[in-house]
Amino acid sequence: MAATTPSTCRVVLAANIAAPFIEEVKEYTKDKNAPLFVGFLANDDPWARQYAEQTGKTATDAGFTFELRVVDKEDLEEKIMEANVDESVTAMMVYWPVFGTQQDKYLQQCVAREKDVEGLSHVYVQNMYHNIRFLDAAQTQKSILPCTPLGVVKILEYLGVYNNVLTYGNRLYGKTITVVNRSEVVGRPLAALLANDGATVYSVDITGTQKFTRGAGIKKKKHEVEDVDLKLEDVAPKSDVIITGVPGAAYKFPTELVKEGAVCVNFSTEKNFDPSVKERAAIYVPATGKVTIAMLLRNLVRLYQNQQLVKGLKA
Amino acid sequence: MAATTPSTCRVVLAANIAAPFIEEVKEYTKDKNAPLFVGFLANDDPWARQYAEQTGKTATDAGFTFELRVVDKEDLEEKIMEANVDESVTAMMVYWPVFGTQQDKYLQQCVAREKDVEGLSHVYVQNMYHNIRFLDAAQTQKSILPCTPLGVVKILEYLGVYNNVLTYGNRLYGKTITVVNRSEVVGRPLAALLANDGATVYSVDITGTQKFTRGAGIKKKKHEVEDVDLKLEDVAPKSDVIITGVPGAAYKFPTELVKEGAVCVNFSTEKNFDPSVKERAAIYVPATGKVTIAMLLRNLVRLYQNQQLVKGLKA
Repeated sequence: MAATTPSTCRVVLAANIAAPFIEEVKEYTKDKNAPLFVGFLANDDPWARQYAEQTGKTATDAGFTFELRVVDKEDLEEKIMEANVDESVTAMMVYWPVFGTQQDKYLQQCVAREKDVEGLSHVYVQNMYHNIRFLDAAQTQKSILPCTPLGVVKILEYLGVYNNVLTYGNRLYGKTITVVNRSEVVGRPLAALLANDGATVYSVDITGTQKFTRGAGIKKKKHEVEDVDLKLEDVAPKSDVIITGVPGAAYKFPTELVKEGAVCVNFSTEKNFDPSVKERAAIYVPATGKVTIAMLLRNLVRLYQNQQLVKGLKA
Repeated sequence: MAATTPSTCRVVLAANIAAPFIEEVKEYTKDKNAPLFVGFLANDDPWARQYAEQTGKTATDAGFTFELRVVDKEDLEEKIMEANVDESVTAMMVYWPVFGTQQDKYLQQCVAREKDVEGLSHVYVQNMYHNIRFLDAAQTQKSILPCTPLGVVKILEYLGVYNNVLTYGNRLYGKTITVVNRSEVVGRPLAALLANDGATVYSVDITGTQKFTRGAGIKKKKHEVEDVDLKLEDVAPKSDVIITGVPGAAYKFPTELVKEGAVCVNFSTEKNFDPSVKERAAIYVPATGKVTIAMLLRNLVRLYQNQQLVKGLKA
């Protein structure tokens, strides 16, 4: 019976969601001298190269100069340090993984925060967790958000999961969201961002489930986290939104746990949902990479603006 | 035959190596108002508690006030942030692991560098890798070194592996050292520190072997690293010093790979060497924890001095 049910699911492609952001960036760059965006590729991962090429093409189309620097992993730190002090470089990113170990965390922090388009510098990440939007007390320099979690937020806004009738900062109020995978780069920051906007978020990982909420009172600056004794089968069926980011081709989210009419978003480079998800979900976003790239460019504009402000203060 | 060979190995205990450093710290604190050192314990690990208690006792004996704050892991970040801005707190440390995931790396960076007695703040770690000894251009504020690797360096100085006849910064010249385990917290920084001082270091890990050297010329500011196609059995027998730091009780360094007359140092909390090592090594240091604690206190004094300098500049 299920196989013949006409699918009413709307599949939304990342390219469509990304388009208006790219237009916005173009509007901004049109009067500028194409700021230089440097990408560092220090691995042989074909997916990383593809991502690099896609970033380059999108960045160039949007009015930036993109330079892919292919370097040996042992030289990467030095090359980052050079770009940090090179005034011709506005922004940079690294295509991860490099070593695939904790050393990559070290390298992330070597990127000057003023040029960190990925938003992985500690101060940016900490500001995100604490819902702090500016770098300075005068609130002139915007803090940068990590590009992938930010992209997922923008996708949920596009899909109407954020409710504009509610106050800004509370537009996910009443929503239950399951995020599968609690990595430090995407899963955990994403859960925090969504909780900061009012959602009840279940973050499910092989190490267990955590519940992220904004806590009592609308004025709280930071989400609250508690360990909960719940499994995926307890939390997924009551979730309005299911977001997956599991690396590895073997993983498939169990379709039978998707609530009828749910919104399903996969930010893994692997297909975490089986095609059968379309028989239950109302909206399905199979990949988010192009939105992530749009967010890189959006961050780039902010970095550029922050740099101009700092230059202005010095002048 | 081997079993009846009289052992000529000298076993050196960390407590003896630590003693002069503790005396030095006491000399410094004797005219002071016992600066406050805060330890955060957010796990149930009995070893962490024991380490905390030992730190507390040593710190108190050396003239500091030590306060152990037992906190829930979910509250740790907030408690660190409070201590960061609390003027009564001179220094702090966290007893790891807390979450045992990458989140611990995030938490490490939440500790204000001005109070980071473990020396894990990014700027300290990066300065160490680049052999930069001061935080400021005027060279008044000393950079802090990560406490465990620093402890091992001090042990090698004590044991005469550092040769005082050679110039400062080159006192390991001609020495070959094997370091087993390349963790981001100890193994890799240690290999870098030893290479910066002139040694040829083989860093052996399950992911492979790397060779750390200072590279050509004595003026280089930073070690060089290359992947080498060598196994433990290739590098250990030619090593003057073997240093182990493998977590897990199951691991034992193969005694037959120890060169006769070598120096063997184990910084793991597990006994990585079998007692038979004494039949081959000239010097054996079975544990380093007490030296690490002495280094924490040494770092504490430096932080205190740096803070006084900054206060002086502001006044």
